[in-house]
Amino acid sequence: MKKVGLVDTTFARVDMARYASARLKACGTGFTVERRTVPGIKDLPVAVRRLFQEGIDLCMVVGMPGKAEYDKVCAHEASTGLILAGVLEAKPVIECFVFEGEAEDGKELEILARRRAEEHAENAYAMLFRPQDLSRKAATGQRQGFADAGAVRPAY
Amino acid sequence: MKKVGLVDTTFARVDMARYASARLKACGTGFTVERRTVPGIKDLPVAVRRLFQEGIDLCMVVGMPGKAEYDKVCAHEASTGLILAGVLEAKPVIECFVFEGEAEDGKELEILARRRAEEHAENAYAMLFRPQDLSRKAATGQRQGFADAGAVRPAY
Amino acid sequence: MKKVGLVDTTFARVDMARYASARLKACGTGFTVERRTVPGIKDLPVAVRRLFQEGIDLCMVVGMPGKAEYDKVCAHEASTGLILAGVLEAKPVIECFVFEGEAEDGKELEILARRRAEEHAENAYAMLFRPQDLSRKAATGQRQGFADAGAVRPAY
Amino acid sequence: MKKVGLVDTTFARVDMARYASARLKACGTGFTVERRTVPGIKDLPVAVRRLFQEGIDLCMVVGMPGKAEYDKVCAHEASTGLILAGVLEAKPVIECFVFEGEAEDGKELEILARRRAEEHAENAYAMLFRPQDLSRKAATGQRQGFADAGAVRPAY
Amino acid sequence: MKKVGLVDTTFARVDMARYASARLKACGTGFTVERRTVPGIKDLPVAVRRLFQEGIDLCMVVGMPGKAEYDKVCAHEASTGLILAGVLEAKPVIECFVFEGEAEDGKELEILARRRAEEHAENAYAMLFRPQDLSRKAATGQRQGFADAGAVRPAY
Repeated sequence: MKKVGLVDTTFARVDMARYASARLKACGTGFTVERRTVPGIKDLPVAVRRLFQEGIDLCMVVGMPGKAEYDKVCAHEASTGLILAGVLEAKPVIECFVFEGEAEDGKELEILARRRAEEHAENAYAMLFRPQDLSRKAATGQRQGFADAGAVRPAY
Repeated sequence: MKKVGLVDTTFARVDMARYASARLKACGTGFTVERRTVPGIKDLPVAVRRLFQEGIDLCMVVGMPGKAEYDKVCAHEASTGLILAGVLEAKPVIECFVFEGEAEDGKELEILARRRAEEHAENAYAMLFRPQDLSRKAATGQRQGFADAGAVRPAY
Repeated sequence: MKKVGLVDTTFARVDMARYASARLKACGTGFTVERRTVPGIKDLPVAVRRLFQEGIDLCMVVGMPGKAEYDKVCAHEASTGLILAGVLEAKPVIECFVFEGEAEDGKELEILARRRAEEHAENAYAMLFRPQDLSRKAATGQRQGFADAGAVRPAY
Repeated sequence: MKKVGLVDTTFARVDMARYASARLKACGTGFTVERRTVPGIKDLPVAVRRLFQEGIDLCMVVGMPGKAEYDKVCAHEASTGLILAGVLEAKPVIECFVFEGEAEDGKELEILARRRAEEHAENAYAMLFRPQDLSRKAATGQRQGFADAGAVRPAY
Repeated sequence: MKKVGLVDTTFARVDMARYASARLKACGTGFTVERRTVPGIKDLPVAVRRLFQEGIDLCMVVGMPGKAEYDKVCAHEASTGLILAGVLEAKPVIECFVFEGEAEDGKELEILARRRAEEHAENAYAMLFRPQDLSRKAATGQRQGFADAGAVRPAY
């Protein structure tokens, strides 16, 4: 039985963890989900390292940085820390961030955040159970939350 | 008995540690608070690691970067170091920074810094003793020091 | 028998791993290639560390950050993590990134990405089997994907 | 007997280490000072780690980045490395940097650098021998080299 | 017998390693030089860590980032990685980078790169064999490749 960690924040404005969890479970079985909530995205790296040390196999984290310039800095610090935690443990961290400024209004934000969380959840599942699905999609311009960019048609 | 580390700086202009400490104690019992003061925010990461190595369970740090562009760089370096210290020890660091430029005048700065310190102190308490409180507030747009942004109303 | 890790992403729009793999094999023998695909470039550092821990001698990673400002930040985070993974294991990581904005259109992007992947693959092979080839090209202004800049003619 | 490391650079234009050393010794006794000089600020992190591994209890480093944009990048890299060295060893690093552009002319630069070095030296002494002095100055808006900003008068 | 590592890149356009090596040998005896060439500056940190693990006492690295904005990012990543490698091993890394944009034309670039490589080589030698030479030059405004800035005349 594999173990997936799923960490979200009280800061986010859309319940991405719920969407991610539902999609994870819709993907298949063979795993349990361990949920955690921290205050903000900068608290995610420690939560991830802790979960790994408790035997979690893969962590998915969801967060929603605000619109201000400073929020971008926080997201950068959080991402750097998440990569650090992952590299130290040699275990995958699926980071799903939606910046509030990516959407025009609340409705759009909700839709974008839900789709991105669901698609990252599919990636998380594939990393643990179906790496061949990722291999098949290699270099096909996949995007999470927006329409896929698609592969560039080979020129020769 | 849990142990909370609380570190502040001589650089800050509002006594956030006092507000944080009072609020921590108002939240409940079952913990002691270990106080430290360092010169500036860039000294916080080492202080945090030291406290963790002395058996502290969670560190809360409070700091007040100045208005200059360089202060933002220092805050970024401090934050990166705080995440490093937390990840290496796999123990939570609650970072409470108030930038001097966030407020119009001294009075506003005092009010903002006090509220943010108190609300981060509540988060610190919850992380140690009531993680279910954080779970209940997941994705509800919590903000520390300012009015909460609130959850986006689900669009579907 | 040496082992080369080759990791790409589902995000990329040109199949650089295919070009890299073909060129690696055209360079010589004495190695096997272990392929992996992860969702995006920020997932590369963990994949690299994992491969190293499984006994891989050198990792080549290929990725294609998008055109947005945020994509540059992600690439920076990924690069920092790749260097971290390499330094922790003391094993080489050949990073081959092509930014979508480097080319005018799809055709140009395909050509650029292919050439860069092939030339980085040659470097990867040289690092493992023919370090003297790299020594011979020292300070000759080599570029991957574009025309070489060449050495500056000594002025004295 | 405590041991203080004091590292400066050949790059700096004001002999801050001399001022720092004199002030350290004027603060009290019970410690020895181990001096080192490296070429530039980016060499400081390694020097600090080395000193710590030789049994030094606290390192003070003094440096003077130039006026160019690139010098700011170097200072950022140096600071990040200094925090890394401190966190890895869990020992304090007092960083005293004066940017050449902070002063109008040489005379002002000399005065600023001297005052900042002396005030950081006092902090270094306090961290080792009189932490209660730092506690007493907590959140009082201390500045090194310039006039103190002072505490914001509590608004309520 | 001390061991000096000297690593350069195929990307650079001036053979700084040759100049550095010649100057190192002109400084004195008592050491051997171990040469390596990697593709680009981002490959330097791993090469340095490897050399240290093979028993090298000090590494000098020479590189020449291009003129584009992205080249500055790469240089920043490389520098951060070099400091990481040095700190992890507690051994000095002398970084000698010349940005292509620092010179007007090829001739100037060649002269600048040669002088900087030679002066950094002198620093490398001094760090290993004559630290007292660095101490004597402390805070004298040394520059590598350009005229020294010199010490600010003490104002009091």
